[in-house]
Amino acid sequence: MLVDVKNLYKNSDKYANAEVELKGWVKTARDSKTFGFIEFNDGSFFRNIQIVYDDTLSNFEEITKVTIYSSIEVKGKFILTPEAKQPFEIKATSISIFGKSESDYPLQKKGHSVEFLREQAYLRPRTNLFNAVFRVRSVAAMAIHEYFQDRGYVYVHTPLITSNDGEGAGEMFQVTTLDLDKVASLGKVQYENDFFGKKVGLTVTGQLEGETFAHAFGKIYTFGPSFRAENSNTKTHVSEFWMIEPEIAFCDLEGVMDVEEDMLKYIVKTVLEKCREEMEFLDKFVSNGLIEKLEKLLNSKFTRISHEDVITILKEAKVDWEFKPEYGEDIAKEHEKYITEHFNGPVFITNWPKDIKAFYMKQNSDGKTVAAVDLEVPGAGELMGGSQREENYDKLISRMKELGMRTEELDWYLNLRRYGTTIHSGFGMGFERLIMYLTGVENIRDVIPYPRTPGNCEF
Amino acid sequence: MLVDVKNLYKNSDKYANAEVELKGWVKTARDSKTFGFIEFNDGSFFRNIQIVYDDTLSNFEEITKVTIYSSIEVKGKFILTPEAKQPFEIKATSISIFGKSESDYPLQKKGHSVEFLREQAYLRPRTNLFNAVFRVRSVAAMAIHEYFQDRGYVYVHTPLITSNDGEGAGEMFQVTTLDLDKVASLGKVQYENDFFGKKVGLTVTGQLEGETFAHAFGKIYTFGPSFRAENSNTKTHVSEFWMIEPEIAFCDLEGVMDVEEDMLKYIVKTVLEKCREEMEFLDKFVSNGLIEKLEKLLNSKFTRISHEDVITILKEAKVDWEFKPEYGEDIAKEHEKYITEHFNGPVFITNWPKDIKAFYMKQNSDGKTVAAVDLEVPGAGELMGGSQREENYDKLISRMKELGMRTEELDWYLNLRRYGTTIHSGFGMGFERLIMYLTGVENIRDVIPYPRTPGNCEF
Repeated sequence: MLVDVKNLYKNSDKYANAEVELKGWVKTARDSKTFGFIEFNDGSFFRNIQIVYDDTLSNFEEITKVTIYSSIEVKGKFILTPEAKQPFEIKATSISIFGKSESDYPLQKKGHSVEFLREQAYLRPRTNLFNAVFRVRSVAAMAIHEYFQDRGYVYVHTPLITSNDGEGAGEMFQVTTLDLDKVASLGKVQYENDFFGKKVGLTVTGQLEGETFAHAFGKIYTFGPSFRAENSNTKTHVSEFWMIEPEIAFCDLEGVMDVEEDMLKYIVKTVLEKCREEMEFLDKFVSNGLIEKLEKLLNSKFTRISHEDVITILKEAKVDWEFKPEYGEDIAKEHEKYITEHFNGPVFITNWPKDIKAFYMKQNSDGKTVAAVDLEVPGAGELMGGSQREENYDKLISRMKELGMRTEELDWYLNLRRYGTTIHSGFGMGFERLIMYLTGVENIRDVIPYPRTPGNCEF
Repeated sequence: MLVDVKNLYKNSDKYANAEVELKGWVKTARDSKTFGFIEFNDGSFFRNIQIVYDDTLSNFEEITKVTIYSSIEVKGKFILTPEAKQPFEIKATSISIFGKSESDYPLQKKGHSVEFLREQAYLRPRTNLFNAVFRVRSVAAMAIHEYFQDRGYVYVHTPLITSNDGEGAGEMFQVTTLDLDKVASLGKVQYENDFFGKKVGLTVTGQLEGETFAHAFGKIYTFGPSFRAENSNTKTHVSEFWMIEPEIAFCDLEGVMDVEEDMLKYIVKTVLEKCREEMEFLDKFVSNGLIEKLEKLLNSKFTRISHEDVITILKEAKVDWEFKPEYGEDIAKEHEKYITEHFNGPVFITNWPKDIKAFYMKQNSDGKTVAAVDLEVPGAGELMGGSQREENYDKLISRMKELGMRTEELDWYLNLRRYGTTIHSGFGMGFERLIMYLTGVENIRDVIPYPRTPGNCEF
């Protein structure tokens, strides 16, 4: 019977001494004169299974020459080996090579650098590191959907191509069907001939559209791509990434912190349960103490503290800051790090100076701050950013005018405040940043299948 | 205690005579001199709950003037009313109006056309029709994730911005950070100054990248946006839509049909179970017989028939075709309709003429056809398109050359056939087309939150 490796691991007793058939790939192989071993995997599970064969196979000679990552079909007996290093193995009665891996296969041996593997992005999920990362990514994505769906949130696909720039500040990619060579030869840009009849770009956030659906369904979330045309070559920037943006009607700042904390714990718990083998590998080879860090998070109560109180703590700290902390100003990476260490766990920083936050955030009565919240986590910095949204039409429009924003293009967004407005809140979480936190991988290019960065759009 | 409408419907016995608190919106209201009724909803459930109030409320006069879609907070007693039209109601002890809906609220009364509601896309999920459609959309999306995750598939985010055109034929949107005004004034296009240093666009498919991950994980699926810059103004075309694209190693054409059939039945079953109220509404007001159609699908075995045999049936049919069916040629909408009626259910049409299908499809030994399959369903036409992929390097490259394709840019895709190739298959399903089929809604603009079509990119 055709089985997969995961099934053999999860139900090994059931399969004891059964005749089984597997289809998959050769991870490594070694042989001696009369017998050989193949470490085999079919992609269903992180761990390999050992195939044992000997020269009673008619194609024994051929099998001894099998190359790494050739695809093979194996028939044999599944045998429990409680006394051996591996818990079971397959004693092959037949092995046939279907797809030979040619001698120039780039991943011959272990120990490639992540930089080299980025160039081989189409092959890197075959390595232990990327196999673990991308399975965690898949399981974490599902955990997010489960979390929200089980709690009555409606999943909304907000648009990717848009004429509004969301944050009022994003650097956007332009989307066009104009023939640029024609633009150059004509010497003018005729947007009336462009696909949408105007200048449009790729979204930087689905929040504004998300709010419209929250005022119909009460609770919604998005999970989709977002784009930034920032010319940043850092470990934490890519031009195309995935975001989760829940919006919740009848929910204030405290309420949205409750959701963020509960959601993060749910994701961490699910990944630790469902990706045990992957997490153990990552703990061992990528980030020592990873599992302990995550288990600690599960059992901690996140600190909630105002931006002002954070600045006071930073000022009182006996630290020679590169950037001096100031009331009314943003905080730097070194401050984020200090504050999570100070509280020994995740920290919600609330009530930020309004001038460093977005126009749509709820204006506090002090006239200086907004009901914004950033979640800082140990070892990863800012993981989520949220706020209560300004639900008052007059206050929102006066803030937009203060900032010199044109209000006509967002009349629909403003109208939400005129047609059944609610106290409502939401947050955004960068999915790749979450995966970096969960896996301990330090470069965002290594947690997304095909990263897009300045000058780099391969595959 | 704060409860939501869904909870009251699902656990009405538990809440009998309880003091409850609700936050939501006024759907309709009517009153007489001493009492009044409010149809109330908070977005958690398709059905409303009735609020009864009388002039013992201190703000009775104000409440009688409450406008449609104002947001309110209600406290009162939850009372079972088994003898009345509605199964229960809330006898209010207090109602406070939080967000008045102003008099120019566009959705005052029922009976707006879908065309008008498209212009009010940010408000339309508040109507019964769109509320039903977008909840079905959310539940169907989750069913798809469940289906694949429960069966060991890994969810992969394939890239949106790309330099390859996938199908070898798609009309793509261009993505750029070049300043078009500068391009016009310079009189030339300097791609070396563009963000990625070359011409790139928005993906038309994630399949090719999906195949690379299937050769690591065995079974994968994508669920993400896809784009077409086609200048088509029809009921079934939008420029931005969502696609599901599974890829399965060690799976042939028969195997992929098994998955398609099983997946579709799972989605239909889940939606019928979880969206009973929405589906009953859609059955009654949008598409009579919708539920019966879907239940019938659950109990049917999908027909599998070759393209050649389909043409024979069409030729023998006593029908005055607008387009004459021919061996070796594509079939028209009228043929799709006839064939699903002929077999009284969904039909897989297999082994298509190679010249009307994509380059990557498995070439059959007859030299004329490829191992492609389209799934036709009654009332919706083509719902999925799939194929076994050509796993043989030489055959694939010779087909590409035959079609005049440049092979260098797809060397990584070709290399999959040199490094552990497998018999593998996959398919694509347009998510909006699925939602049209599930809801009976006939215009694709009405099943996606903010549709993008030629000349139309609002919100």
